[in-house]
Amino acid sequence: MTQPDTSLMSRLVSLCKRRGFVYPASEIYGGLNGFWDFGPYGVQLKNNLRDAWWHDMVECPPLGPDGKPLTIVGLDSSIIQHPQTWVASGHVGGFADLMVDCRETKLRYRADHILCIEVQYDKSAQTKSLGWLSVQSGDDAGELLAKKAKKLMQKSGGGDLRPIDITKAVPFTSLSLEQQALVIGPDAEVSGTLTQPRPFNLMFHSYVGVFQDEDAKVYLRPETAQGIFLEYKNVVDTTRVKVPFGVAQVGKAFRNEVTPRNFIFRTREFEQMEMEFFCEPEKGLEWYEFWVAERMRWWEAQGVKKTNLFRNIIPAGELAHYSKGTSDIEYRYPFTAPGFGELEGVAYRTDYDLKQHQAHSKTNLEYIDQENNKRFIPHVVEPASGLTRGVLVLLCEAYQYDESRASPEWLKLKPSLAPIKVGIFPLVNKDGMPEIAEKLYLDLRKDYISQYDAKQSIGKRYARMDEAGTPFCITVDGDTLKDEAVTVRNRDTAQQERVALAQVRPYLSQKLSD
Amino acid sequence: MTQPDTSLMSRLVSLCKRRGFVYPASEIYGGLNGFWDFGPYGVQLKNNLRDAWWHDMVECPPLGPDGKPLTIVGLDSSIIQHPQTWVASGHVGGFADLMVDCRETKLRYRADHILCIEVQYDKSAQTKSLGWLSVQSGDDAGELLAKKAKKLMQKSGGGDLRPIDITKAVPFTSLSLEQQALVIGPDAEVSGTLTQPRPFNLMFHSYVGVFQDEDAKVYLRPETAQGIFLEYKNVVDTTRVKVPFGVAQVGKAFRNEVTPRNFIFRTREFEQMEMEFFCEPEKGLEWYEFWVAERMRWWEAQGVKKTNLFRNIIPAGELAHYSKGTSDIEYRYPFTAPGFGELEGVAYRTDYDLKQHQAHSKTNLEYIDQENNKRFIPHVVEPASGLTRGVLVLLCEAYQYDESRASPEWLKLKPSLAPIKVGIFPLVNKDGMPEIAEKLYLDLRKDYISQYDAKQSIGKRYARMDEAGTPFCITVDGDTLKDEAVTVRNRDTAQQERVALAQVRPYLSQKLSD
Repeated sequence: MTQPDTSLMSRLVSLCKRRGFVYPASEIYGGLNGFWDFGPYGVQLKNNLRDAWWHDMVECPPLGPDGKPLTIVGLDSSIIQHPQTWVASGHVGGFADLMVDCRETKLRYRADHILCIEVQYDKSAQTKSLGWLSVQSGDDAGELLAKKAKKLMQKSGGGDLRPIDITKAVPFTSLSLEQQALVIGPDAEVSGTLTQPRPFNLMFHSYVGVFQDEDAKVYLRPETAQGIFLEYKNVVDTTRVKVPFGVAQVGKAFRNEVTPRNFIFRTREFEQMEMEFFCEPEKGLEWYEFWVAERMRWWEAQGVKKTNLFRNIIPAGELAHYSKGTSDIEYRYPFTAPGFGELEGVAYRTDYDLKQHQAHSKTNLEYIDQENNKRFIPHVVEPASGLTRGVLVLLCEAYQYDESRASPEWLKLKPSLAPIKVGIFPLVNKDGMPEIAEKLYLDLRKDYISQYDAKQSIGKRYARMDEAGTPFCITVDGDTLKDEAVTVRNRDTAQQERVALAQVRPYLSQKLSD
Repeated sequence: MTQPDTSLMSRLVSLCKRRGFVYPASEIYGGLNGFWDFGPYGVQLKNNLRDAWWHDMVECPPLGPDGKPLTIVGLDSSIIQHPQTWVASGHVGGFADLMVDCRETKLRYRADHILCIEVQYDKSAQTKSLGWLSVQSGDDAGELLAKKAKKLMQKSGGGDLRPIDITKAVPFTSLSLEQQALVIGPDAEVSGTLTQPRPFNLMFHSYVGVFQDEDAKVYLRPETAQGIFLEYKNVVDTTRVKVPFGVAQVGKAFRNEVTPRNFIFRTREFEQMEMEFFCEPEKGLEWYEFWVAERMRWWEAQGVKKTNLFRNIIPAGELAHYSKGTSDIEYRYPFTAPGFGELEGVAYRTDYDLKQHQAHSKTNLEYIDQENNKRFIPHVVEPASGLTRGVLVLLCEAYQYDESRASPEWLKLKPSLAPIKVGIFPLVNKDGMPEIAEKLYLDLRKDYISQYDAKQSIGKRYARMDEAGTPFCITVDGDTLKDEAVTVRNRDTAQQERVALAQVRPYLSQKLSD
């Protein structure tokens, strides 16, 4: 299949804007870096993914290893919590990126996102150094580096530039101080203008109440998880849950990312779907493996191809000091391919968080196991997923390009996740067809998000629905008046079949329950 | 019916905590004034109300006056937007409460919440003044004032205190400067310590990016509405909506209220359900009346008694300068009864917001009506409802007290809004009953949020479900093995009926669709 020249990501971003999935936030004011709004189709897609997670996690949680359904309850905690929360969790002290400033351009970079390489050339049978170049990591990093090297070479007055191999570039953080001093910053003209990496806290802060002093300082949560730990005791005390049990929530979180990028992959405001599973300490590793497998399976069930998912087991040496095991569930994004990028993290966090909150709040957070006459701080396994990022994965996975179709770009979303389930069209806007189509629309929309469209040719209407990922289009035509049947067109096959009006609901119910 | 001594609100708050509807946020750290978390039942109730609104507003909007369905699309815009948004909307300049500081106690009050009264007494056939007392408005304001007056009287050394009539108390803001100087602050010992009222902006602010200067200052949205105006142009340009149409969204908003109070009625972090309806200027008043009636009807459909709802038409003289009509839909909260308090506002905002954003963003926001060859800035009617507040209304409305029941306190929620739809119990935890009950649970929970409970007596299990507002409880008993039927107990009537296992799904489907 011929693909357009532009990169897949830029086509996807463009489709998302053009069809009302995702808009840049505050676009009429020039936008705000790292913030995006979900348009009419986008919010439906996001809601559907959110609801699928909530259904499968809270309302209908999976069966455990013993074949019995797990107990998981929902929660919705505040974005702003007592500031001690983030001292206990370690976010006030440690939640920081290493940042590098450029003294020349006044720009700031994440230290691990600056890729550096020593550029060499051959002259008079000798290999010489042109100096150290740098770029910010990203899709076009290699290309940019090559361009910069060429420009530098032209200034140097002759010689053969050695080819730039982007895979040999190393992050700024891995250079020695001497080497760092030789680097020309990503946007700079001369070397030695980059500072040493310094930590920068990623939490947004604000002030509650009327005074703006340190006592009133609060934070926008950088993750929803801590809200669950704060309510762990209330949940145990006021519901009838017994270990093992989970508490799940979906909600906004905020990180003052220095370099938001890759569309809605890394944004400053985003949504998470997190669950903390509280279990007996000796069962922690077992539940960790259970949840990694379960979450991989779940993403596949949302229509993500197995080959595009990857379990990245964090090596023991790189684990957070409290973790006994963490796996990232990664997806092959267009901007990471052939590599993978994070979609969900499943972390076995031991009893670290509850112990921290117990110490800081001076509240006993022990669990009392009355049956076995034991007291302990439960261990925790946390599957923490991005909802915003999940929407991006669904879009990347669904994006299709086929020049032979009326709309070469179309979205092959899992039907139950599609923003619109059914397009309903009168073939022509007269002869009794609109009346039947409208009646059908008014009936179906009660249970299936529907869109009525009577404008332009039927081909254009199919094309519009294909771009929105609508799995079924129903056309009321001249025969409908006689045979009480309609044409149902399948998005994926573009095939049509005749379905009796009375059979439309059972037809959709069956097709959408897959 | 005998009611307990404690006030309805304190009983409701206690029930909410005890049964996991609403917890104080950060309770283990002593809480954070104005922030609440929704527990397992609360989040389900809130989600159900949110989903009902979304369904009836976006997926299945009402029919218009012409009998045709309205066009309303969804949106989910960022909490943090470009700061110019709030300059254009008037929130940076004007979104302020008048505040009064007490120089003695260092406490701060909302000026309109300080109720003042001159206390008088009779002595030697003369009426004398004891001075001006004040309290913060609230349930017990009258009682508090009377106590304070008595204390003051005791100090004065004899005479007959005139009874305190709280209805005669006036807000601090309505006093002359001379009178203000005579008032003893709500928590003060002497008079003259209250400052004159001064404005205090209610928006939380933060900083985006690495520098914390004025250029980087952003705000947490104090309402979701402005995000809709920001995306009005994108929605018009990228979807096929034609005026009149609506854009709806549900989401968090933040206001740094000086005196958060009345449980989840006035909080600092809350959720809104707002819709902006864009229409032709000459149709604005008509749509305003349409939406007031429609929204009153909707709240009734959620189970709120008509007699507890009140349309408060804001008098012309008190309207915002740009509004041609605003009605508050008010509810008779326990803390306002026999009066009412705000639940939703329906405002005819004219073209004010779009014109403001057009001017500040220098972006043309005219709508082009191609059919009639007209260009205009649409007028806007805004039904803006509190989701958090809506949950409070549902809880207040549902709260029942009946000493004759196993649980005297129970919640008569509309079945479709109840957090749990079905409780499923084996009568005793043996003899094959748990197996059948579990199987039924695993089947029903796919479509109806269910709770399985096998612990304690059946009466206690009913009582627990009554407190949670669960409309139906299904018991598998000894006969079930023989007759393949179960007992379904109705929450409201406490009556039981025998339903064949095969008929349970259609039974629930019918009962829950009401």
